Amino acid sequence: MKEKLREVAIELFERKGFKETSVQEIVEAIGATKGAFYYYYKSKEELLCDICVSYLDDLLRQQACIVQDPEKSCTEKLRAIVHMVICNIRTRKKSARIFFREMRHLADDHLAEIRAKRRLFRKRYEQLVREGIARGEFKPSLHAEMITFGLLGITNWSYYWFRPDGGISEEELTDIFVDFILHGIKAPRAGESGRNEAEPGNSGGQTE
Amino acid sequence: MKEKLREVAIELFERKGFKETSVQEIVEAIGATKGAFYYYYKSKEELLCDICVSYLDDLLRQQACIVQDPEKSCTEKLRAIVHMVICNIRTRKKSARIFFREMRHLADDHLAEIRAKRRLFRKRYEQLVREGIARGEFKPSLHAEMITFGLLGITNWSYYWFRPDGGISEEELTDIFVDFILHGIKAPRAGESGRNEAEPGNSGGQTE
Repeated sequence: MKEKLREVAIELFERKGFKETSVQEIVEAIGATKGAFYYYYKSKEELLCDICVSYLDDLLRQQACIVQDPEKSCTEKLRAIVHMVICNIRTRKKSARIFFREMRHLADDHLAEIRAKRRLFRKRYEQLVREGIARGEFKPSLHAEMITFGLLGITNWSYYWFRPDGGISEEELTDIFVDFILHGIKAPRAGESGRNEAEPGNSGGQTE
Repeated sequence: MKEKLREVAIELFERKGFKETSVQEIVEAIGATKGAFYYYYKSKEELLCDICVSYLDDLLRQQACIVQDPEKSCTEKLRAIVHMVICNIRTRKKSARIFFREMRHLADDHLAEIRAKRRLFRKRYEQLVREGIARGEFKPSLHAEMITFGLLGITNWSYYWFRPDGGISEEELTDIFVDFILHGIKAPRAGESGRNEAEPGNSGGQTE
């Protein structure tokens, strides 16, 4: 029942908004009573918090599995996190949208709990960037904290536009983004004047 | 007066939410009457639309100046757009937050107008990426449309976390992000086994 309440609330909050959805509408949608609702939740706000917490706990669980994997390099872990966030759009888009849009309706103690979880997700990501630097996989000059915000931006923004059933698959988007993140967009020799001419050793070169 | 109404509405919508703010509160906050309000706006929704349109028109105006500059390379234009969006956080954060959060309250025709403006901003950005590819500044293999979404993600996400008066300045963040966008995070030689040894021609090299 609790799961059902949460599911229908996700639908309603996403479509109508948190403020515009009443407890009455939520229980009516699954043929339950207000009594049943208040057995599980003290208030509509507590249900909103439950949606946000469950969304974040799920992401944190998946992230922990990835970063703790002793077989993977930091680059592979980075790829796995990008892929995970993009794949979550299919299953968790509505929760994510509610989370970002309605967070301000949470009570202060709930907001503090949510913020701590978000921070943990970000700090683990940042730790991965730092580890990648320490292992020589990523550039030593990186500003790990700001780069992490950039990485989060690339994937989190996808919730606003990516259609998993559109022309680009989750796998393809992951490849595009990971290549972008690792190598950037600049053409290898663009603007490095003289590098081409000065580079000898091209076996089988043309004579002209 | 219209400007004043818009300014106070931005404050109230941002703090309390669009639905939770009444026309009465807006006019009271500047000592005006409802009559004055309805002289300028047909409804609270029209005022919301005006806030979103003015926010987007301003961004589009700045973007047009940048992309039309015949003196700048595509790389310089890219930098200028990243810088522009980051600098807009200081002056336009509240409008941006209202825009993203309350857009769903707009009437269909207003929403269509807003969407067309957002699309224009994105398509101009994408055009810049395509031009950069054509001129050899950016990699020919790039998926211009998806890369543009990635670029938008990096800067738009900043509205959620960047504090212009914090430890990192707008200029510094622009430098960090542009370097990330152009060159990526991967260490130059990481994983490219054998490249170092095979590359001759290092004048003044060490003998050891």
